[in-house]
Amino acid sequence: MRDYHVAIVGATGLVGQEFIKILLQRGFPMASIRLMASDRSAGRKLPVGNREIEVEETTADSFEGVEIALFSAGAEQSRYFSPLAAKAGAVVVDNSSAFRTDKGVPLVVPEVNPEDIRLHKGIIANPNCSTIQMVVVLYPLHKVNPIKRIIVDTYQSVGGTGIAAVEELKTQARQVLEGQVTIPHVYPHQIAFNVLPEIDVFLDNGYTKEEWKMLEETRKIMHADSIAISATCARVPVMIGHSEAVHVEFSRPMDVDEARQILSRAPGVRVLDDTAISLYPQAWSAAGTDETFVGRIRQDASHPNGLAMWIVADNLRKGAALNTIQIAEEMIKRDWVKPEGGQ
Amino acid sequence: MRDYHVAIVGATGLVGQEFIKILLQRGFPMASIRLMASDRSAGRKLPVGNREIEVEETTADSFEGVEIALFSAGAEQSRYFSPLAAKAGAVVVDNSSAFRTDKGVPLVVPEVNPEDIRLHKGIIANPNCSTIQMVVVLYPLHKVNPIKRIIVDTYQSVGGTGIAAVEELKTQARQVLEGQVTIPHVYPHQIAFNVLPEIDVFLDNGYTKEEWKMLEETRKIMHADSIAISATCARVPVMIGHSEAVHVEFSRPMDVDEARQILSRAPGVRVLDDTAISLYPQAWSAAGTDETFVGRIRQDASHPNGLAMWIVADNLRKGAALNTIQIAEEMIKRDWVKPEGGQ
Repeated sequence: MRDYHVAIVGATGLVGQEFIKILLQRGFPMASIRLMASDRSAGRKLPVGNREIEVEETTADSFEGVEIALFSAGAEQSRYFSPLAAKAGAVVVDNSSAFRTDKGVPLVVPEVNPEDIRLHKGIIANPNCSTIQMVVVLYPLHKVNPIKRIIVDTYQSVGGTGIAAVEELKTQARQVLEGQVTIPHVYPHQIAFNVLPEIDVFLDNGYTKEEWKMLEETRKIMHADSIAISATCARVPVMIGHSEAVHVEFSRPMDVDEARQILSRAPGVRVLDDTAISLYPQAWSAAGTDETFVGRIRQDASHPNGLAMWIVADNLRKGAALNTIQIAEEMIKRDWVKPEGGQ
Repeated sequence: MRDYHVAIVGATGLVGQEFIKILLQRGFPMASIRLMASDRSAGRKLPVGNREIEVEETTADSFEGVEIALFSAGAEQSRYFSPLAAKAGAVVVDNSSAFRTDKGVPLVVPEVNPEDIRLHKGIIANPNCSTIQMVVVLYPLHKVNPIKRIIVDTYQSVGGTGIAAVEELKTQARQVLEGQVTIPHVYPHQIAFNVLPEIDVFLDNGYTKEEWKMLEETRKIMHADSIAISATCARVPVMIGHSEAVHVEFSRPMDVDEARQILSRAPGVRVLDDTAISLYPQAWSAAGTDETFVGRIRQDASHPNGLAMWIVADNLRKGAALNTIQIAEEMIKRDWVKPEGGQ
């Protein structure tokens, strides 16, 4: 297996930093690595293992010689630069929402739909953080007993918004503890010691885009257009780690023990479920880990075919950087780096 | 209308303190007020308006001459002292879980089932905080279009646990901000910058007692045993104010505008719902207020007869002290202080 010329676009962001950490931790086959960001960050030097690498400004000409480009610089940047990178011969794995619902772009969670990688034409989309951790857990159950309906309410950390949001939470928390007034900048209202049911923009149907992503992306990844889905996505004063209360209706009754058994063998999933010792997934302890944790698995009292559960993952890792890199690894392993049909 | 001899049991707790504030704010018809608590707090003096009143230890003989006793001292205390208070001639309005599911004890939210007060035999139960705010909003809709199923996931503040929990959250938040290790005392795990899907004890069916209360109490208050209900209750790092993501299935389709109109006329309810200006209920701004706030009202994308919404209230006020006092006020107004059938 050969090494690849890799570029990270958005290298100075929270996810960009995770990209660097995870590439090194996993020994990703890199022949070279280049760090790109906006002109504001260009010239900064970032540690990559023992080296220091200077951040370059992302430009139309940046992608010459790049084979794999990991993007996490926001949808606007992705929309502009990803096609240029693909044209220059790179495969883009994009963590933004820019291409996720495009029919020609695979949207991939390696534990769920790795085969879709093969269909790429130079761009592969990484799903939304909240969606990834949910489908990693639900798909193995769905294969055994098809899911008909999902209701999910999220408890999302501010880390998903970026570094400025983490700082805002810390600053506001200090201010509240000292009896001072807080002034929101990143979010429309105070996030410290508060809950905001608003993530991404509002759509005309009253849902937020974040909530609607969970519906559209789950169906696309699981190849299951008929699953009914409703989500309420809320921001909670947590730094890293998204939690989700999930209520699932299956085609037939699903025994709790059967679900636990299936999930204990499921790739990327770790069952933490022993109420006798208050063992269940938590954002605080999931931060910095690679697995998706599930617990509180119980028969849903409101439906004969229902299960309720609690799902948590590190939104910067499995919810973003890790899944993006896993897509690249899978693509390499299966020798699908060249777009289907060759170039 | 005459004045009544009132006692507060659990006067030094968070809800006890709210009792005092709200009785004064509303000009409750008090001939006298006595403050009771455990022997640890006996002798302490608490401000009641301009006066200072000494806290007495609650004993079997405490209730001589008391006409209305507001209890918020935990289920164990209520189970022991409430029957003694009732026997001594007082009507107990009890904020604990001790009697809520007893068939002979009315469980009342004045906006929903005030008529049930009449059936008391000396004890009236105040529902669980999470249940109260949900039924205040759902009942007016249910009357128009009967509800078949409710899925609710909560974001509950630590204030419901008590003063020690609020202090623990503040202490842990400071420790995290200063990079120190936290040690949990009140909760089994760290609550600062974390979410814990555990409120009250676990039952054999995998639900917590808090979650099961929402099922049992909602049915009892709404006189609707056939409503299917499932809840996940989670503790979030918020001081005061519970938030709830609620997904409701009605018997027939329910238009969003119709729901908003019904709710804008509903007693105790305030609609805060304008996504264009990020207007929706928030725990932070609900704290200290008397209303139950609802927003994010939208057609539930997962069911043709469904609505999704976001409900928030001050769990110490409408969720506890205020509702308890409203029960007492309603009882006085309707001249039901003497148990039905007289004494």
